[in-house]
Amino acid sequence: MSKRKGFTRRSEDFSAWYNEVVQRAELADYSPVRGSMVIRPWGYGIWEQMQHALDDMFKATGHENAYFPLLVPLSFIEREKEHVKGFKPELAVVTHAGGKELEEPYVVRPTSETIIYAMYAKWVQSYRDLPLLLNQWGNAMRWELRTRLFLRTAEFLWQEGHTAHADEAEAEAEARTMLGIYRRFMEDWMAMPPVTGVKTDGEKFAGAVRSYACEAVMQDGKALQAATSHMLGQNFAKQFDLTFQNRDGREEFAWNTSWGASTRLVGGLVMTHGDDAGVVVPPKLAPSQVVVVPIAGGEAEGAGVLAKSEELADALRREGVRARVDRRLDMSVGARFFDWERKGAPVRLEVGPRDVARGEVVVVPRVVREGGARKETLGEAEAVEGMRARLRALQDHLLGEAKARREARTVRQEVGSVRELAGLLDEGAGFVYSGWSGDPEVERRAKEEAKATIRVVPDEEFRSPAAPSKCPGGGRARMEVIWARAY
Amino acid sequence: MSKRKGFTRRSEDFSAWYNEVVQRAELADYSPVRGSMVIRPWGYGIWEQMQHALDDMFKATGHENAYFPLLVPLSFIEREKEHVKGFKPELAVVTHAGGKELEEPYVVRPTSETIIYAMYAKWVQSYRDLPLLLNQWGNAMRWELRTRLFLRTAEFLWQEGHTAHADEAEAEAEARTMLGIYRRFMEDWMAMPPVTGVKTDGEKFAGAVRSYACEAVMQDGKALQAATSHMLGQNFAKQFDLTFQNRDGREEFAWNTSWGASTRLVGGLVMTHGDDAGVVVPPKLAPSQVVVVPIAGGEAEGAGVLAKSEELADALRREGVRARVDRRLDMSVGARFFDWERKGAPVRLEVGPRDVARGEVVVVPRVVREGGARKETLGEAEAVEGMRARLRALQDHLLGEAKARREARTVRQEVGSVRELAGLLDEGAGFVYSGWSGDPEVERRAKEEAKATIRVVPDEEFRSPAAPSKCPGGGRARMEVIWARAY
Repeated sequence: MSKRKGFTRRSEDFSAWYNEVVQRAELADYSPVRGSMVIRPWGYGIWEQMQHALDDMFKATGHENAYFPLLVPLSFIEREKEHVKGFKPELAVVTHAGGKELEEPYVVRPTSETIIYAMYAKWVQSYRDLPLLLNQWGNAMRWELRTRLFLRTAEFLWQEGHTAHADEAEAEAEARTMLGIYRRFMEDWMAMPPVTGVKTDGEKFAGAVRSYACEAVMQDGKALQAATSHMLGQNFAKQFDLTFQNRDGREEFAWNTSWGASTRLVGGLVMTHGDDAGVVVPPKLAPSQVVVVPIAGGEAEGAGVLAKSEELADALRREGVRARVDRRLDMSVGARFFDWERKGAPVRLEVGPRDVARGEVVVVPRVVREGGARKETLGEAEAVEGMRARLRALQDHLLGEAKARREARTVRQEVGSVRELAGLLDEGAGFVYSGWSGDPEVERRAKEEAKATIRVVPDEEFRSPAAPSKCPGGGRARMEVIWARAY
Repeated sequence: MSKRKGFTRRSEDFSAWYNEVVQRAELADYSPVRGSMVIRPWGYGIWEQMQHALDDMFKATGHENAYFPLLVPLSFIEREKEHVKGFKPELAVVTHAGGKELEEPYVVRPTSETIIYAMYAKWVQSYRDLPLLLNQWGNAMRWELRTRLFLRTAEFLWQEGHTAHADEAEAEAEARTMLGIYRRFMEDWMAMPPVTGVKTDGEKFAGAVRSYACEAVMQDGKALQAATSHMLGQNFAKQFDLTFQNRDGREEFAWNTSWGASTRLVGGLVMTHGDDAGVVVPPKLAPSQVVVVPIAGGEAEGAGVLAKSEELADALRREGVRARVDRRLDMSVGARFFDWERKGAPVRLEVGPRDVARGEVVVVPRVVREGGARKETLGEAEAVEGMRARLRALQDHLLGEAKARREARTVRQEVGSVRELAGLLDEGAGFVYSGWSGDPEVERRAKEEAKATIRVVPDEEFRSPAAPSKCPGGGRARMEVIWARAY
């Protein structure tokens, strides 16, 4: 199959496969702007579905959307010293505007903590103004040296939530709540089950007290940091004078959190579910869940087949299914089939003149699940009425497969040296659970010698039944961690 | 009323009123970035409602969303000579990134024709790839000297549609279709009835063959260009080599259109419907159509009243009404009433302990329509079940009022001199319909001496029954035009 359509196979070169699939499925394309991509309609449609789902979850937990400036005064970024250290090398700088050199340069936001907390300082006076729970959908820019479509691009689309609270415990709970929302979204919508936990100090967000993350394993065994949620403490509040009068009338600094997920998730979806024939989109995120493909030779034939196709699509829409008709009758049937296979539309409905005469359709799922048929001929009503259940089953199937792949790539054992860690990863391990002494020097060595990083100190439910005692650095383990090579 | 809440009255100083209302209703705020504003949740919520409505209309007419880079190589902007003349003075330029000076500077997109058509040139080979009907939601930047919240800001949010067609007639029809969609959106959703027509050559988009626009009259009589749709001909296709093979196998340049509407519309909504007490949001665009305000003294009372308020909000949501409960019980009732009055939520429901006991609520519309009550006490079920009809009636009322105001501000007469034109506008005319010779010199003089511009050559349905014969320049009229002072 893969050869016929000219894709590199995943097993030959996963990275080449990814780049080809993303472009040939028309998810995205390279642009004339270094490191910036173009997101094409099918890729953007997936992002829109992601946005709807996340936005609903944010709003259901009391958050509102707002919009803050794209440009940030350079001096703002420089105020929080860890923050500027982390972001300065990646800044894009506007030095001229309106035909003049600016007195103070602006940077294109790499993230918006500074400008947002400067505004919060203006809006918040009293504990009555808290919590302040805002989210922003927008673009951001980090001038990365090596870029890859969706996974690492100079410009990316994302949401960044920013909250302010009257006390530490509430901010901590918020950071945790949002981590939970991301996790639920990844499991329920993306069928990409992540592990959650806390980042080490060496891997946390520049300016955070603590960073939480969702980490998923891709099909090549590499980890993808898929979303993060940060407890910022009072670090930014102190730099931007974000204070409030508490119930006792005393002035205090507010506590902040920030949390984000980006178009990187689209890349994660591709690397989680794609196969050698192309992308596979989980039904809940597919811009079109069912593509009706009319099969017609002559014009006279075409009219009846097209009418029936539109009728079926309408019937599906009434059932709450996102359906479209592929009306490109001047393209060969085979080319249209392959196009939707590459794009990963969950179900194809074929409608030919004979089907119309018989009141039947051919139902072809993008992915064949256990016990499922590769192709079924069904009565029209049966096909339509059963579609939601079919899509649900496909969604569950994808989650099950992804979970099984994650487990197959997971190694839990005592790891007594960095070399041993490297060996496990070389042999195909994805997540290696081991002990860690807590010494950053071990992280440095692992990065250098095994190209591995600690993804997270896993949350309790992910921890091994027996706590490991060895650290790859040679010392005694103080906690369990997850190592991986990462995107 | 206005004094109590400290607003300037519209009749005293419309411009001061606008600035105060936008900030005090928490639609937007000034930011530390010159010319850039912060859109606060209530303002952004209105924009979200606008986005949903427009996006549905775009999709229903076959358009899909995509995303193109924020940064555009300066050389791209320079290719189309009228285009660069129009936009160069307003560009913000990125000269440094990743710690280095860039070899070629990038500009922050003022509009995306150039980068988008460069991509189309890569994607389009044959007539089979046409039409290409894409839209982008995003931000853009034009370094304006004088800025005003929503109406003219350095950065703004908008959508920009960009299409490519195989022939001129189809492109022309597309530009017209989109103008019609904007008009319908403004009438049906914003209750802001525009006049449509074509721009003169002096006022058209830089690089367009023809620009169509929706123009509305604000309460102070000034015109607002609320959305534009451009027939670009082959101007950009020629610069970016956007060609296709036609049905006869010959290579041709494609025909383009572009069309956009921005957060400026939020400003238009305020200036169309606002009153001396604040903003008035048409129900179809209100983030919350009904705000339930629980009125409670002590804690014990609070619980029952809050529970009833949530119950009512749920019941309203089941009826398809966007409802919220204002749970800020530590704020005085009066302060909460004024807050929602300023923000312009269409209906307030007051729920006090006595109302709960009686199974009643007090219904208070933001705007009292003819024959409508300022305040009504209704049974709970009656209030809930009648809410959609009530909101529809309010929406219709606002459209009727706006239409009446537009007509009251419209003057149709022979205007034989620029001085006469200035006089009519000084006396409060909004749109002055007159003849025009077609001479750009008359436009120049009118701008200088009457501060007026030709908003559009109106579409047929807006034209006067008898064609005017005089031109303010003194010559013979060749067509009818609409003059106004504009934002």
